[in-house]
Amino acid sequence: MPPFLSGRFWRAVFTRTRGERLWAGHRRASGGPGCRWDALAGADVLRAEPDRFGGISVPLERFRALDRLDAASFQKVLQAAIQQWRSEGRIAVWLHIPILQSQFIAPAASLGFCFHHAESDSSTLTLWLGEGPSRLPGYATHQVGVAGAVFDENTRKILVVQDRNKLKNMWKFPGGLSEPGEDIGDTAVREVFEETGIKSEFRSLLSIRQQHTNPGAFGKSDMYIICRLKPYSFTINFCQHECLRCEWMDLHDLVKTENTTPITSRVARLLLYGYREGFDKIDFTVEELPAVYTGLFYKLYHKELPENYRTMIGMD
Amino acid sequence: MPPFLSGRFWRAVFTRTRGERLWAGHRRASGGPGCRWDALAGADVLRAEPDRFGGISVPLERFRALDRLDAASFQKVLQAAIQQWRSEGRIAVWLHIPILQSQFIAPAASLGFCFHHAESDSSTLTLWLGEGPSRLPGYATHQVGVAGAVFDENTRKILVVQDRNKLKNMWKFPGGLSEPGEDIGDTAVREVFEETGIKSEFRSLLSIRQQHTNPGAFGKSDMYIICRLKPYSFTINFCQHECLRCEWMDLHDLVKTENTTPITSRVARLLLYGYREGFDKIDFTVEELPAVYTGLFYKLYHKELPENYRTMIGMD
Repeated sequence: MPPFLSGRFWRAVFTRTRGERLWAGHRRASGGPGCRWDALAGADVLRAEPDRFGGISVPLERFRALDRLDAASFQKVLQAAIQQWRSEGRIAVWLHIPILQSQFIAPAASLGFCFHHAESDSSTLTLWLGEGPSRLPGYATHQVGVAGAVFDENTRKILVVQDRNKLKNMWKFPGGLSEPGEDIGDTAVREVFEETGIKSEFRSLLSIRQQHTNPGAFGKSDMYIICRLKPYSFTINFCQHECLRCEWMDLHDLVKTENTTPITSRVARLLLYGYREGFDKIDFTVEELPAVYTGLFYKLYHKELPENYRTMIGMD
Repeated sequence: MPPFLSGRFWRAVFTRTRGERLWAGHRRASGGPGCRWDALAGADVLRAEPDRFGGISVPLERFRALDRLDAASFQKVLQAAIQQWRSEGRIAVWLHIPILQSQFIAPAASLGFCFHHAESDSSTLTLWLGEGPSRLPGYATHQVGVAGAVFDENTRKILVVQDRNKLKNMWKFPGGLSEPGEDIGDTAVREVFEETGIKSEFRSLLSIRQQHTNPGAFGKSDMYIICRLKPYSFTINFCQHECLRCEWMDLHDLVKTENTTPITSRVARLLLYGYREGFDKIDFTVEELPAVYTGLFYKLYHKELPENYRTMIGMD
């Protein structure tokens, strides 16, 4: 979070007076004509943190005294603040509201704010003050599901399941949604184990599907990734809650069956191609690399790059 | 949305009495001891839609009369409803709240609800009533960014930019965040055009990066995808707002420069490998396929599959 811009920082009225009395005064005065409070309030009251993009960020949790404001008074305070920020050339306002202060959401909405996102115990609303349509960045747009194609090269068998709660009993790979912060490969290994009892390790990424306006994703987009996994346990102990059937099937049989989804059939064919002619033909392998700015690490997936291209030795 | 379970459907009290008088009666009575209203209200008042997962969905926008309830009275109504749903064995409650009815969020939070998500003009809160930790599906976890590696095979030149607002001026591929509902390849083509003025078409998907707890993604995960694009215009007219520099650079020079990000350097080497030995060595190509249940179409990306594996003719 950016540091307070201390020189230009708005003194909070209630810190000068311990709040309660003045807020009460504000409530009384706000109805009267020519009330000086409306002029004093606004940006003076809502401590705001400028960001480096020309916006302003208002974390309401800092101001417990706000709880004593009713919705109508808060709306007046916010309206005055918006005028102030607009006059300073601010292009956006971010309002961060703890869930127990949500009585301030509707008054903000009446002034044009809308939800940017909400999670757990807080919500964030935004108001665009700049020219033209909003250029504010959106929130997460995709859920990520991952399936594991667990293939045993020694027996040419592949692990498949039938879902319990589907209309059609089609063979598919075990899988499910990524948990927040979980790597693609880890989701595949975890979901395969939870559904089938089979332990495996990540080998490669085989395919990616993108699908939009998904009912199961609350209208958001869905990224569905199939990974190639190598098993290191073989005794099936499948989850009766999720699966109707689970078995090790000969890869040829999965390629030939009509009782499967188009994407499973396609990936089965890819695996047969890789099995016969080398998995390097079908794999995106993974590597961990450092991010330039954040100091975080990330996983990068692409076709295996021959060593001489990696190091550029002997290339020219 | 699932149909009303009409047989067991809760008659809304206010439809029997045109609401206003009864809500007023409720407000008066709710403070008194032994008030029959508290027993009558709850699930009777909040029309609920059962879902096929054992949960219950409550769309508050259906009930304009709720606007006349104060927060404390709403909390009592909701509390009684929860008791009812719990006694029926419901495992979860989904509360859908229009932004102008947000005064009901804090009272719901006091009963254990928290935000599942919010967007634009409504929020959704959930309460888990089942055994153990919540098994409710999460909301979107990833933003998706896409960059375009626009490579001209005739001249061996690649299109690169330097961002205007970064601390280090490193060469990279033009790109940006996907709009909601936008396909990966369309984002690449759009962002390349907006940043550089170059028109191009999608060829393949070259790499995927996954990174978590991204400050720029509001703490969510980031999926960053680099596509190979083929240019069909060549005169640069770059966005002065976003870019400091933009040029067609010899691919060899991009491979060799240190003034670039690790991922750009890696993809430049991949492109050089593909340029010399065939792009089929590095590409995930795309195809559109029909979804089994929804009737929607999706884009599927994987290594090109030889025709005989696709059709299975002459394979055995």
